[in-house]
Amino acid sequence: MQKEVKRVLVISPHPDDETLGAGGAILKYLAEGAEVYVLEVAGHLPPLYTREDFDITVSEAKSAFEILGVTQFEFLEIPALMIDNQPRHEFNGKIANIVNDFAPHIVLCPFPDRHIDHRVVFESTLVATRPVGVGRNIEIVAAYEVLSETHWNAAHIEPNFTPNWLVDISDHIDKKLDALRCYKSQVSDFPGPRSIEAVEALAIFRGSQAGFAYGEGFHIVRKVS
Amino acid sequence: MQKEVKRVLVISPHPDDETLGAGGAILKYLAEGAEVYVLEVAGHLPPLYTREDFDITVSEAKSAFEILGVTQFEFLEIPALMIDNQPRHEFNGKIANIVNDFAPHIVLCPFPDRHIDHRVVFESTLVATRPVGVGRNIEIVAAYEVLSETHWNAAHIEPNFTPNWLVDISDHIDKKLDALRCYKSQVSDFPGPRSIEAVEALAIFRGSQAGFAYGEGFHIVRKVS
Amino acid sequence: MQKEVKRVLVISPHPDDETLGAGGAILKYLAEGAEVYVLEVAGHLPPLYTREDFDITVSEAKSAFEILGVTQFEFLEIPALMIDNQPRHEFNGKIANIVNDFAPHIVLCPFPDRHIDHRVVFESTLVATRPVGVGRNIEIVAAYEVLSETHWNAAHIEPNFTPNWLVDISDHIDKKLDALRCYKSQVSDFPGPRSIEAVEALAIFRGSQAGFAYGEGFHIVRKVS
Amino acid sequence: MQKEVKRVLVISPHPDDETLGAGGAILKYLAEGAEVYVLEVAGHLPPLYTREDFDITVSEAKSAFEILGVTQFEFLEIPALMIDNQPRHEFNGKIANIVNDFAPHIVLCPFPDRHIDHRVVFESTLVATRPVGVGRNIEIVAAYEVLSETHWNAAHIEPNFTPNWLVDISDHIDKKLDALRCYKSQVSDFPGPRSIEAVEALAIFRGSQAGFAYGEGFHIVRKVS
Amino acid sequence: MQKEVKRVLVISPHPDDETLGAGGAILKYLAEGAEVYVLEVAGHLPPLYTREDFDITVSEAKSAFEILGVTQFEFLEIPALMIDNQPRHEFNGKIANIVNDFAPHIVLCPFPDRHIDHRVVFESTLVATRPVGVGRNIEIVAAYEVLSETHWNAAHIEPNFTPNWLVDISDHIDKKLDALRCYKSQVSDFPGPRSIEAVEALAIFRGSQAGFAYGEGFHIVRKVS
Amino acid sequence: MQKEVKRVLVISPHPDDETLGAGGAILKYLAEGAEVYVLEVAGHLPPLYTREDFDITVSEAKSAFEILGVTQFEFLEIPALMIDNQPRHEFNGKIANIVNDFAPHIVLCPFPDRHIDHRVVFESTLVATRPVGVGRNIEIVAAYEVLSETHWNAAHIEPNFTPNWLVDISDHIDKKLDALRCYKSQVSDFPGPRSIEAVEALAIFRGSQAGFAYGEGFHIVRKVS
Repeated sequence: MQKEVKRVLVISPHPDDETLGAGGAILKYLAEGAEVYVLEVAGHLPPLYTREDFDITVSEAKSAFEILGVTQFEFLEIPALMIDNQPRHEFNGKIANIVNDFAPHIVLCPFPDRHIDHRVVFESTLVATRPVGVGRNIEIVAAYEVLSETHWNAAHIEPNFTPNWLVDISDHIDKKLDALRCYKSQVSDFPGPRSIEAVEALAIFRGSQAGFAYGEGFHIVRKVS
Repeated sequence: MQKEVKRVLVISPHPDDETLGAGGAILKYLAEGAEVYVLEVAGHLPPLYTREDFDITVSEAKSAFEILGVTQFEFLEIPALMIDNQPRHEFNGKIANIVNDFAPHIVLCPFPDRHIDHRVVFESTLVATRPVGVGRNIEIVAAYEVLSETHWNAAHIEPNFTPNWLVDISDHIDKKLDALRCYKSQVSDFPGPRSIEAVEALAIFRGSQAGFAYGEGFHIVRKVS
Repeated sequence: MQKEVKRVLVISPHPDDETLGAGGAILKYLAEGAEVYVLEVAGHLPPLYTREDFDITVSEAKSAFEILGVTQFEFLEIPALMIDNQPRHEFNGKIANIVNDFAPHIVLCPFPDRHIDHRVVFESTLVATRPVGVGRNIEIVAAYEVLSETHWNAAHIEPNFTPNWLVDISDHIDKKLDALRCYKSQVSDFPGPRSIEAVEALAIFRGSQAGFAYGEGFHIVRKVS
Repeated sequence: MQKEVKRVLVISPHPDDETLGAGGAILKYLAEGAEVYVLEVAGHLPPLYTREDFDITVSEAKSAFEILGVTQFEFLEIPALMIDNQPRHEFNGKIANIVNDFAPHIVLCPFPDRHIDHRVVFESTLVATRPVGVGRNIEIVAAYEVLSETHWNAAHIEPNFTPNWLVDISDHIDKKLDALRCYKSQVSDFPGPRSIEAVEALAIFRGSQAGFAYGEGFHIVRKVS
Repeated sequence: MQKEVKRVLVISPHPDDETLGAGGAILKYLAEGAEVYVLEVAGHLPPLYTREDFDITVSEAKSAFEILGVTQFEFLEIPALMIDNQPRHEFNGKIANIVNDFAPHIVLCPFPDRHIDHRVVFESTLVATRPVGVGRNIEIVAAYEVLSETHWNAAHIEPNFTPNWLVDISDHIDKKLDALRCYKSQVSDFPGPRSIEAVEALAIFRGSQAGFAYGEGFHIVRKVS
Repeated sequence: MQKEVKRVLVISPHPDDETLGAGGAILKYLAEGAEVYVLEVAGHLPPLYTREDFDITVSEAKSAFEILGVTQFEFLEIPALMIDNQPRHEFNGKIANIVNDFAPHIVLCPFPDRHIDHRVVFESTLVATRPVGVGRNIEIVAAYEVLSETHWNAAHIEPNFTPNWLVDISDHIDKKLDALRCYKSQVSDFPGPRSIEAVEALAIFRGSQAGFAYGEGFHIVRKVS
């Protein structure tokens, strides 16, 4: 009996979130033979940014994807900070279409945090992954953290990130950091929340919570087995 | 390459909790080829109960285990309602010994609820399963619910059970209920929180949360992969 | 001295929510001589649905109301999934008008859950029932659960439903299920979250939490006496 | 048909807690014809206090009870700060006996707060009022606040008091304060958390939350109807 | 070495919120030599109110500011209840501009509560005060309470206010109440949540939590030192 | 006018917790001219350890204190894991005595976490620092995190650490790590939760949350000003 190949859908609000939050898990799933699909929801687009801004991040994302080994991806091209400006049911439909088409077993999405786009993407992911239709085959829906938007949620008022799933990415940390380095327009020098050093430090901290060297933390919304 | 057989440790405060909370999961794990070990921590023992009370529940448990297919188990024989009377580090040591000896991949324990024994067992399980030593090989620590002690926690003051892991036990519900029927001294007629009807209803409700017929709900404390 | 007849306002996002969440309580209040008013806020209307879709649910609702004994009701006819598209203060005004006109003692509304309409209706109910003006005569504001939208909230991120008020509907469960059966377009076969079996199972589970056979659970937002 | 007289059980960790937390509700229930029973669990007794200390508070309590109109009460005479030193199942048994004997409809107990006696009394009340046996006739279990132990819980770590039940005690505030004045050994001058001024201020604040002049706030643990 | 003068930014959804929530702290900071800037975000403006309504509150605010000693302020003149109607990134930009220009050390904003404007202002303040750019010099971001919108949040569903910062305003309570009296169009007679008596009572209650006579409570979102 | 020297009390369950959780803050407070007193509550003592075990940690602690600059300290010499075995009011008395004698402005204590000693010390600190008597002069009570006991609390059941106070220790990280290196018997190699690397990583992560290089995070229980 042949085991079905796992399909992993990573929903990323903007290029770089997928690597920051789940780059190690992506590498690990691919190494285990899974199929990974990255959906980039929004981006630095007019009217708040120029098309050139966006093109740079797309190009950086493609370099990062190459390092991660991601070959399946899509850019929805919704202007950043403006996802919430369109009717919610329309945006929900876009996310639902991808879930229906890809029929994932694992869905990784952003934690609802300081960045309004992350909240909207989280909520629409939750709607699209309800356990009905293809949603009944989803085994895990989990939210990843993004330095430092996730940790800028208001302490003890808004949801605060505490991972209940820790993935050992010790064998993948180097490639995760390499992929992140592709995002030259997004990565900052240390100290800075999106510096390579800060991302590596977070990986060590998450690892320390579970007894290994480098980790990624997730909040499991629903596991089904 | 041969896959390692999964070892599942079910820590049960009293005989019947393992069936009420995780009977379906036990059946499912065994059906998948896993090894299951049930630890019965306390029981109806003197001074609050008679030895005969205890012997009845042990005999009922063994009948239930036969239906579930559980062949590995142990009774620690601590008097019910009195776990908390012994020094905590001593009790912690007892739980830790079993975790160290069995070296489980999956640990299922009671949710900390109305019953003080459940709280103490929960806490000691958490200590014994820290990700150090053999604890580094544990893949899941999760808490099950027990009708109705778990749902008698004070609403919005004490922790309230919301499952983030739902196990499809549709193929195992009949045996779960049969195993439960062995606990003649514990099961009550409907209506009553430990009636067969109430347990079946809870299974349907948990199933409805995840898109299948009968389910068991767990609160994942830590998943590592 | 004559006791005032209690007025119960049930605010339902869509036809069937009132029966799923509070059908038993409605039957019980009416049996005790209370006046019950059901407000149906939204419905399957264009542009996302056809007018025929809506008319079917209205007709089903009227059949259900007959079984429940509800004679006072209103359909606001706002398109489902689009409540949030109108300015909030306008929608708030609509709910406030009904609260002001009916001057209820008890207000039952949906729990803020996976369905965006439920969230908006919850929030507007909370605004409309503030303890000012007629709001000072409200004795209870409580939120009901709706299978399974309420239980599809993200575990431990969004609010999770834990009832602090349990209503014994043992004498009313048959009629509740009969009323629900009127919603042919909404009810699904078992297994399915809105199957008769799942709704009955939830009633048994809620009953088990309080020592009776069949119950309905509510989250009390504010009780005044 | 004659309506049954309501029986209200107020469980007070130490003399004065019943007045601080529920004095207004006691007066109101008695005014409505209910029977009220006050259980004083602990007190200023040897070895940490002298018997004289205790006798003073008993005498003050009896004066307060006279003003409140309380004629049924009992002093369990457990040394304050030492409830937790006896085996929990023994203490649980004492509380359970009173619940079984009095068979209350309403049970008011302290919120689990900074004072360890309040926590133990809260937990034992929850055990004794489970919806089994006479517990099935209990309509409300609720926790009251005690200035300022309740508000010295660690913010956002321990449970923080937010009332979901507000009782209008505008007609009873004067007597509540008079009863409190009987506790000369416990009441302090303003400013001081147990000053008459602070207690009156809290009553105004609670009233402001529900649209009336003076109120008492409770956290409903379970309401059944 | 000269110590830098502290700059305190008080973001107020509507005229009177700054006095209700932080009037005492404003007086205290000014007495200590700090610079205080009050931003009034919204107001009673057309289309829901008349321009005259707004002018009255502006005039009342200016009288209050005089008593408080506030000389730096600005009215953004966004219509009340309609902040959420404009694109969020535009509104965020307005708040961010003020933060950038004033470069505050302390930022006080409303708690996200029953009033939708308070929620939006809270969220935008959190975005504008992220620890990047001038935000890195902010020492405290904290939320104040507003009688009684803050205490009309749904108990145990929405965030409930529990202060972790208590400011002793015993020396300033008289002026705070005088400033509040300037808001003749907003203040109500006792009983009423915005009566002078209720505001004074809340101050006494907050004081009782920290051992002084009159206090103001805040929820610290972030303190940096 | 001369400003009073700040007195900082660091309550440490076992030698090394003070450095792990608050080493940077200790260095910073001392650099600012404050007085720091470290109370070591428990230690590796018989019967669970040998006296030699304890003496080693005392000697390591003294070396660490030298690096930190701590000259005031005390070892209560309570056997580790057994604090909870003595009557709580006796242990509370010991902590209260030190608070009364030292009369601190700032109190730093462990977060209530996986280690039972940390919980008991937390609770007793909270009792001893109530805002009565000398407690009225305390400006901050805050809890620090200890790798990794604090992060082994059960996710979403027990309190999870989210700092609301971040201290910039960039100028002190080197000395903090040097002090930690003194605890040869406690520090492990990387990977290991108490490795130098893990502690440095946590400092970077905390720094990233507030815009600086290295930080320490605290949960403010009460700030008074």
